[in-house]
Amino acid sequence: MSVLQELIAALPDGTVVTDPDILESYRHDRAADPSAGTPMAVVRPRSTDEVQAVLRWASAHRVAVVPRGMGTGLSGGATALDGGIVLSTEKMRDISVDPVTRTAVAQPGLLNAEVKKTVAEYGLWYPPDPSSFEICSIGGNIATNAGGLCCVKYGVTTDYVLGLQVVLADGTAVRLGGPRLKDVAGLPLNKLFVGSEGTLGVVTEITLKLLPAQQSACTVVATFDSVEAAANAVVAITGKIRPSMLEFMDSVAINAVEDKLRMGLDRHAAAMMVAASDDRGPAGAEDAAFMAATFTEHGATETFSTSDPNEGEAFVAARRFAIPAVEAKGSLLLEDVGVPLPALAKLVSGVAKIAANHDLVISVIAHAGDGNTHPLIVYDPADAAMEQRAQLAFGEIMDVAVGLGGTITGEHGVGRLKRPWLAGQLGPEAMELNRRIKQALDPEGILNPGAAL
Amino acid sequence: MSVLQELIAALPDGTVVTDPDILESYRHDRAADPSAGTPMAVVRPRSTDEVQAVLRWASAHRVAVVPRGMGTGLSGGATALDGGIVLSTEKMRDISVDPVTRTAVAQPGLLNAEVKKTVAEYGLWYPPDPSSFEICSIGGNIATNAGGLCCVKYGVTTDYVLGLQVVLADGTAVRLGGPRLKDVAGLPLNKLFVGSEGTLGVVTEITLKLLPAQQSACTVVATFDSVEAAANAVVAITGKIRPSMLEFMDSVAINAVEDKLRMGLDRHAAAMMVAASDDRGPAGAEDAAFMAATFTEHGATETFSTSDPNEGEAFVAARRFAIPAVEAKGSLLLEDVGVPLPALAKLVSGVAKIAANHDLVISVIAHAGDGNTHPLIVYDPADAAMEQRAQLAFGEIMDVAVGLGGTITGEHGVGRLKRPWLAGQLGPEAMELNRRIKQALDPEGILNPGAAL
Repeated sequence: MSVLQELIAALPDGTVVTDPDILESYRHDRAADPSAGTPMAVVRPRSTDEVQAVLRWASAHRVAVVPRGMGTGLSGGATALDGGIVLSTEKMRDISVDPVTRTAVAQPGLLNAEVKKTVAEYGLWYPPDPSSFEICSIGGNIATNAGGLCCVKYGVTTDYVLGLQVVLADGTAVRLGGPRLKDVAGLPLNKLFVGSEGTLGVVTEITLKLLPAQQSACTVVATFDSVEAAANAVVAITGKIRPSMLEFMDSVAINAVEDKLRMGLDRHAAAMMVAASDDRGPAGAEDAAFMAATFTEHGATETFSTSDPNEGEAFVAARRFAIPAVEAKGSLLLEDVGVPLPALAKLVSGVAKIAANHDLVISVIAHAGDGNTHPLIVYDPADAAMEQRAQLAFGEIMDVAVGLGGTITGEHGVGRLKRPWLAGQLGPEAMELNRRIKQALDPEGILNPGAAL
Repeated sequence: MSVLQELIAALPDGTVVTDPDILESYRHDRAADPSAGTPMAVVRPRSTDEVQAVLRWASAHRVAVVPRGMGTGLSGGATALDGGIVLSTEKMRDISVDPVTRTAVAQPGLLNAEVKKTVAEYGLWYPPDPSSFEICSIGGNIATNAGGLCCVKYGVTTDYVLGLQVVLADGTAVRLGGPRLKDVAGLPLNKLFVGSEGTLGVVTEITLKLLPAQQSACTVVATFDSVEAAANAVVAITGKIRPSMLEFMDSVAINAVEDKLRMGLDRHAAAMMVAASDDRGPAGAEDAAFMAATFTEHGATETFSTSDPNEGEAFVAARRFAIPAVEAKGSLLLEDVGVPLPALAKLVSGVAKIAANHDLVISVIAHAGDGNTHPLIVYDPADAAMEQRAQLAFGEIMDVAVGLGGTITGEHGVGRLKRPWLAGQLGPEAMELNRRIKQALDPEGILNPGAAL
């Protein structure tokens, strides 16, 4: 029996896929990593037991395992490897909600949006909201410690993880944490897996902390004729109140969105902010008024406030639409750098300088309230020289962020695309500590080799 | 040069203390662990460099190091060991606040209350509020992932840790994370140290996330003639709103507090709830009205609501005073078990059964909103048989909690007192994973041996 036949025999029919056309579609995530190989198989288990069988087999034969959620990752965390397998969690889709403990137990293959929808039926809310929430999986969110728009107030994925079931490299299944809001028994190992990008284990079950349904928000939109003015307003706001959203779009993004949506955005603005407060009752409106006034004080050319959720949502949708809209101009290298908030304007102007130097269009959108920006580097893949300039810019933007005390990745993960820059941010001691943990949990190095570490 | 002289020579004068009277005062934390030894020295470094020197020395000579904050721990996490040293961080007291990034960088020796006070000068707030906040250190809070009263809404210590500087067993200093609200570069190792009870490294600097100043709260106090009624009301509340406090006291605690404070508490009540909402404007009062109504629906014999912060604070102070008040009745074994919220009433009745079986007074107070209870086992240390019964009860309470899907420790840590029960909660796979991480970071086992793991 060949190595692969052994795997096929260990799992229910149809779990192991070797059809070349299907394999092709699992080679890349959205990062379209050019180094992608072709896996020997795609494995789609339906249970923790099956994941254990896969990893026992992979350990025994030293086969590289690339865990994959819905393949929406932007850093090449799920790039397939020649001779390895892709372990897709897409078929693991159970969820149960306990409204009394305000927790949900979800399998990793559910979409973020499906988790939100299911818990909403109980009047509950799962806050983290990556822009890709309608197409990304909750398992992938765990792998990258995904963020989103509401994180400025509500925190990131790890803040909602109470417990995990994880299958380790050798096939051992471990339960960490559980539906207890406070639990300090043993090391906080559940947190260690949130953001580990599939390098330490495969998450097969997630116990999520939920909140009561979100209140409807008051929304404020403001346009500025300089990026600095907008960035200064952000800092003035976050020092005083806790907005539930504080999003930034630059001129390129505004125009790209307006090209598509024709909603009357100001094409001459250098920057647009979309801010919201979901504090209840008059407090939300007070926050909105405070933000509008702060925007004005900082030179906003126009502000618009609304307490109508649909009207507000239209602007949020415009912000969410920025990436596909800019993508209409060419292929994108999508950056994810973050800085301490006071450095936001410097980061944006640094990006503009890089764009000018390399004769590139780089649009900046940002979760401004937490200093996390997404410079969108536009290039034509048919123009090899341009693509090379885009790659250079991609690296230089990370260098600028690190130089400002920032991070090479705020919420997308290191994956394979950003790995060469990781040591520059972490330094040798923290890199060594990362390697020690990896070595302790995956001594054979079969889990997502080449990603993150 | 003796081993100890080598340490003395490596550090500034006065850093290493060997005076027997002083050593005596560092043998125990508040758990008064009877197994405590006498350390060869107490070392009180003032900087990361000095901590590195201590750990290099300890590694070279395989000397056990017991890290210690202010010695207020309740699980024996800082019990001294014969022939080891106690590394006290009490002299490391620097703090700087950046109101723009809404972060503080604190050394571990500051009291929690000092951190709160310093950041309040900038209009900011550090939420976690263990009842011991006036005497416990922020470093100790990191070690145990401390909780408190406001955690039901605002989360626990780990939710506020953005970055750490940690000295590892071999003396390497590592920076993890930093003043960035989102950062997923590398494994989330800063979180691994929060709650690691000094077993993986010594934290020398902490970057804390802060919030804008808390709004003043509306407070609701309610008395019940059964514990079940109070527990049911808790679940009805947390499913609907996010109170900023939801505290429980049983009849023994009510009477003990009333004995001391004479504030007119209902001595006939079986349970008292102290609840609050700090939502802004009318929302806080709405929440308070909702909680009062819910208490009444669930059979409260009396409810009292106030939006006067001083009046509210008097009841919070009464709740905080419960432990010293009950302590007036005898020595205490202070438990810290937690359960998923629906099991709260079962846990409390289980404790009552254990008290009856062992002819003991056990008072239960609880951070009810997150299912975290503190059964206070009263005993007379001069009565050996009673002390033994108290010890039995201490273990049985943990067994009941684990049997209800709960935890042996919600916020105090495992330390040495609860270590025999840890495997029963975690199971063999998670225990093995804990040991693997410990082995990877502290292969010689010099850091807090015998604690937690």
